[in-house]
Amino acid sequence: MIDYVPPLRDMRFILSELAGLDLIASLPGCEEAGEDVVAAILEEAGRFAAGVLAPINRQGDIEGCRLNADGRVETPSGWKAAYDQFRESGWIGLSAPVAFGGQGLPKLVSTPVWEMWFSTNMAFTMLPQLNVSQAEALQIAASEEQKQTWLHKIVSGEWGATMNITEPQAGSDLAATRTRAEPQTDGSYRLFGQKIYISYGEHELTPNIVHLVLARLQDAPKGVKGLSLFIVPKYLLDAEGQPGEKNDLRCISIEHKMGIHGSPTCTMSYGDRGGAVGWLVGKPNRGLESMFIMMNEARFGVGVQGLGLAERAYQYALSYARERVQGRNAVSGEAGSPIVHHSDVKRMLMAMRARILAMRALLYSAAGWFDIAHHHPDPVVAERHRRFVDVLMPVAKGWCTEVGNEVCDDALQVFGGMGFVEETGIAQLFRDARIITIYEGTTGIQANDLVGRKILRENGETLAELIKEIRATAVELQQDGRDAALPLIGNRLGDIADELDRALNWVLANGSESLGSVLGGAVPFLHLFGVVAGGWQLARVAQAAVGKLSAGEGDSGYLQSLIDIARFYMAYEGPQSVAYAAAMMNGGTEVDRFNVRML
Amino acid sequence: MIDYVPPLRDMRFILSELAGLDLIASLPGCEEAGEDVVAAILEEAGRFAAGVLAPINRQGDIEGCRLNADGRVETPSGWKAAYDQFRESGWIGLSAPVAFGGQGLPKLVSTPVWEMWFSTNMAFTMLPQLNVSQAEALQIAASEEQKQTWLHKIVSGEWGATMNITEPQAGSDLAATRTRAEPQTDGSYRLFGQKIYISYGEHELTPNIVHLVLARLQDAPKGVKGLSLFIVPKYLLDAEGQPGEKNDLRCISIEHKMGIHGSPTCTMSYGDRGGAVGWLVGKPNRGLESMFIMMNEARFGVGVQGLGLAERAYQYALSYARERVQGRNAVSGEAGSPIVHHSDVKRMLMAMRARILAMRALLYSAAGWFDIAHHHPDPVVAERHRRFVDVLMPVAKGWCTEVGNEVCDDALQVFGGMGFVEETGIAQLFRDARIITIYEGTTGIQANDLVGRKILRENGETLAELIKEIRATAVELQQDGRDAALPLIGNRLGDIADELDRALNWVLANGSESLGSVLGGAVPFLHLFGVVAGGWQLARVAQAAVGKLSAGEGDSGYLQSLIDIARFYMAYEGPQSVAYAAAMMNGGTEVDRFNVRML
Repeated sequence: MIDYVPPLRDMRFILSELAGLDLIASLPGCEEAGEDVVAAILEEAGRFAAGVLAPINRQGDIEGCRLNADGRVETPSGWKAAYDQFRESGWIGLSAPVAFGGQGLPKLVSTPVWEMWFSTNMAFTMLPQLNVSQAEALQIAASEEQKQTWLHKIVSGEWGATMNITEPQAGSDLAATRTRAEPQTDGSYRLFGQKIYISYGEHELTPNIVHLVLARLQDAPKGVKGLSLFIVPKYLLDAEGQPGEKNDLRCISIEHKMGIHGSPTCTMSYGDRGGAVGWLVGKPNRGLESMFIMMNEARFGVGVQGLGLAERAYQYALSYARERVQGRNAVSGEAGSPIVHHSDVKRMLMAMRARILAMRALLYSAAGWFDIAHHHPDPVVAERHRRFVDVLMPVAKGWCTEVGNEVCDDALQVFGGMGFVEETGIAQLFRDARIITIYEGTTGIQANDLVGRKILRENGETLAELIKEIRATAVELQQDGRDAALPLIGNRLGDIADELDRALNWVLANGSESLGSVLGGAVPFLHLFGVVAGGWQLARVAQAAVGKLSAGEGDSGYLQSLIDIARFYMAYEGPQSVAYAAAMMNGGTEVDRFNVRML
Repeated sequence: MIDYVPPLRDMRFILSELAGLDLIASLPGCEEAGEDVVAAILEEAGRFAAGVLAPINRQGDIEGCRLNADGRVETPSGWKAAYDQFRESGWIGLSAPVAFGGQGLPKLVSTPVWEMWFSTNMAFTMLPQLNVSQAEALQIAASEEQKQTWLHKIVSGEWGATMNITEPQAGSDLAATRTRAEPQTDGSYRLFGQKIYISYGEHELTPNIVHLVLARLQDAPKGVKGLSLFIVPKYLLDAEGQPGEKNDLRCISIEHKMGIHGSPTCTMSYGDRGGAVGWLVGKPNRGLESMFIMMNEARFGVGVQGLGLAERAYQYALSYARERVQGRNAVSGEAGSPIVHHSDVKRMLMAMRARILAMRALLYSAAGWFDIAHHHPDPVVAERHRRFVDVLMPVAKGWCTEVGNEVCDDALQVFGGMGFVEETGIAQLFRDARIITIYEGTTGIQANDLVGRKILRENGETLAELIKEIRATAVELQQDGRDAALPLIGNRLGDIADELDRALNWVLANGSESLGSVLGGAVPFLHLFGVVAGGWQLARVAQAAVGKLSAGEGDSGYLQSLIDIARFYMAYEGPQSVAYAAAMMNGGTEVDRFNVRML
């Protein structure tokens, strides 16, 4: 295994210089997030990721999970010890409210921490990630009594958590949900139905598992407006609130998947013997709203998975490229050259590095906006940032997962033949990553959400505001004489912002008359938005690096490399915006007019 | 399993209308390739692929191969019976010379046939593919006596064949080859060394295996000009020419790979017990030249793998998309819609279909050029087409394997969560495909070959000629009033040909002064060339389809769909040429100036 090195320098730079850690720490409720505390947390998390999670990742892939004849699911060896340590260290509640045992830290702080978990062991990390998502949902939707009963245990990680949404006939289409809930005289419900793709639906890492299950009441309206949310624990609680009688639910199979072998993906059956006991969370038929809270949380988290896997893959590739000696340098003619010096390998590594920095800057900035939206005392500022987060969410998920896959793909390529052999570990990252553009809403779903709910519904106002911000950054750089790189970057940023603007206007112009063209071009549009938003953030990275250089602060070699990487991104990735804009507008139109029967 | 349907209609259209089957069949030595014979061969091959190879593909993936304690390698169940049937049907010698038991058919005919093998079972097909490559090399480099001894058995498939090139320290860098050969008094040699990544290096599907091994004579010059080629059989031949005494070579391990599990990838050890007996093929120190013959043959074949896997993945995705009902059609609002009607799924399927057609048209056209180069009586015409094949080879390999992976990736995406689950089979295609951009020279190596040997060495003359051809097609379409689509396609083809021309001039202008920039942009340049060459061929598809429509021939719906797909490609894929050209020129320059230590 190639050691994981927590990318603390990049993290700290982006937190402080770009994402406004100072500002966040000044917001009411975020006072704990001082620079020293955050630095200590990141270091400790980095040690844990490198020392506990990374070493068991490959073994988890090899062993996978097993469903025994008695219905028990075995997770890989090492999982239990690591989970206990993870839980005891309090990592799960990092950003949960103090009232429920959490540490109440802002999302800006938890984001880099979770990035490190995903980098080192994605299959494992999906378990505590589910607790975080479920805690968010319960916090908002559950009754006070429910919170007291369940939320503490979920925040502490004493019990596991799951999201039960998908059914065989209801994948992206939740309207087709069939699982039903029957009210009982004692106020509880009995649930009947089957759920698929339930991550950590069954395991023995915790003494209980709290399932959040989407189901339909008998007299519920059709479609998604007739879905309700239920707490259905694996074990019912006894008088002391401890796990007692087994509930009527079980794991009936686990999937044989291409990756994330260490995470059991269960088919859960509810109510085979009279009904699984559950309790309604929130109002009847309003389950989807609460579920969306979890999903939005989870979608951002999956974007961070893209970043985390990409960072790890980059570290693998860079380490291999520095050690592997092969051929002579085609430029210098030197023999016995590590392949990192070969121009094409260097290109791939630079592309990885640039995209990782862009993703990190984008995701951390979005996390900062999220905190501002939740904590800023000025409601206008808070609302503005909530809208920014909303419009960016499909990109944070869709673009960062697509790019995460591309980076893993390039990293595998750097390994050559060794990349295809499982023992190096890069193949696992490549396989693991392939799920992230699918679950929590495919890239196509994200793109639909972007053009539909996030743009057309509000006539593109928030995105237009964001483009204004991007152009303001471009103008700042164009006028910044401190480093010749900045006007260059600024000009290119202005150009690609124009592409995004043009594309936005096309969406608005065609959204009602030619929706099929807009939807046919929605994914290219999402990519376009991602390329521009990533470029914007890298431009800000370069701007901040020049600022520090000018002030004589920091490591000048490192700061210069940030500027150079931003330049490279603008030259190498930026022009994709032209291709995506054309693919969206002209391509989308061709999609719409094509006769689908002729495929 | 989703049934494989041989894409005979597309194949026949491209063979006849684009790749000049008529012309090829008129060349001396190719007279067998009449339209009826070819149609019968394709149908028979399609039946074999669908009926024999496809059904064992998934089982081969699940079972994989095993190295037993006694050194025997077990291939998946079903392999032996399928191989015997394959061999007995004479498929291996399809394009081998009649003098050695082959059928002497042109490459234009064998290419679609092999496409079908790769579509249905790539891991299996690598075995007979090695026979074809080895037969090519022996035919050109071996002595008459060697041909009589070995070539018949390789062409018939009675014996297996391997290529032994790579060593642990010598991957892409053959100069580092260490395996050595010591001459014996009887004219034979004794070989000592270790070779890795030897596909089908050991198995029991044939009573003997003929290894072609690259090794170094003791007094050989350093580097690649000191490599010689040797025949080293698994069993030495007895007086009757039958496999007798075991040679001093063995498989010491097999790789655990991400894909192509049915193909054993062996580490071979030669000479542990006194030396493996071998015979020099061709002249001393000239082994690489013969090996290059095999490699060129194999590279084209790997390009066809990209096409074959893409076609199969497309069939999987299309079949799933037509059956899977999910949600309501966002455009029409209709509920219970098969996902093929969702705009984004339609987009992905169209992109797959367009790229597959482009690859097929390009590869078949190249196969036709290959036949013209080998058989045309006019040496000027032959030489011109040889140069076309040469300059196109890195694209046929590099671009078609990259695009093949993209298509498999899109196909998996269409399956959503089911794509990540192994049982559907699409995950296997995705995993299998990942090796093709690596073996027989990574995409980076192909791109270096393209800008170095194929362009800079001859001052770009052949590519300039090819661009002239592309522009001529563009002008023809621009002036063709029979269908409004043609001028549209022609204009866009002209635009992207300009991008390629501009990029070529940049390569020529910077090749000596700024080689690092050129090599840093070489892979984007390869992609650019691929996008344009593929677009050229699709433009020709549209042109031919309009021709048939105008003549009132053929199925008008099908022909119209070809025109529409070509339009879509130009609108959707074509603009990538702009991005690749910029990534190459501006990006390559940034690569060159970046300090590699700052990665």
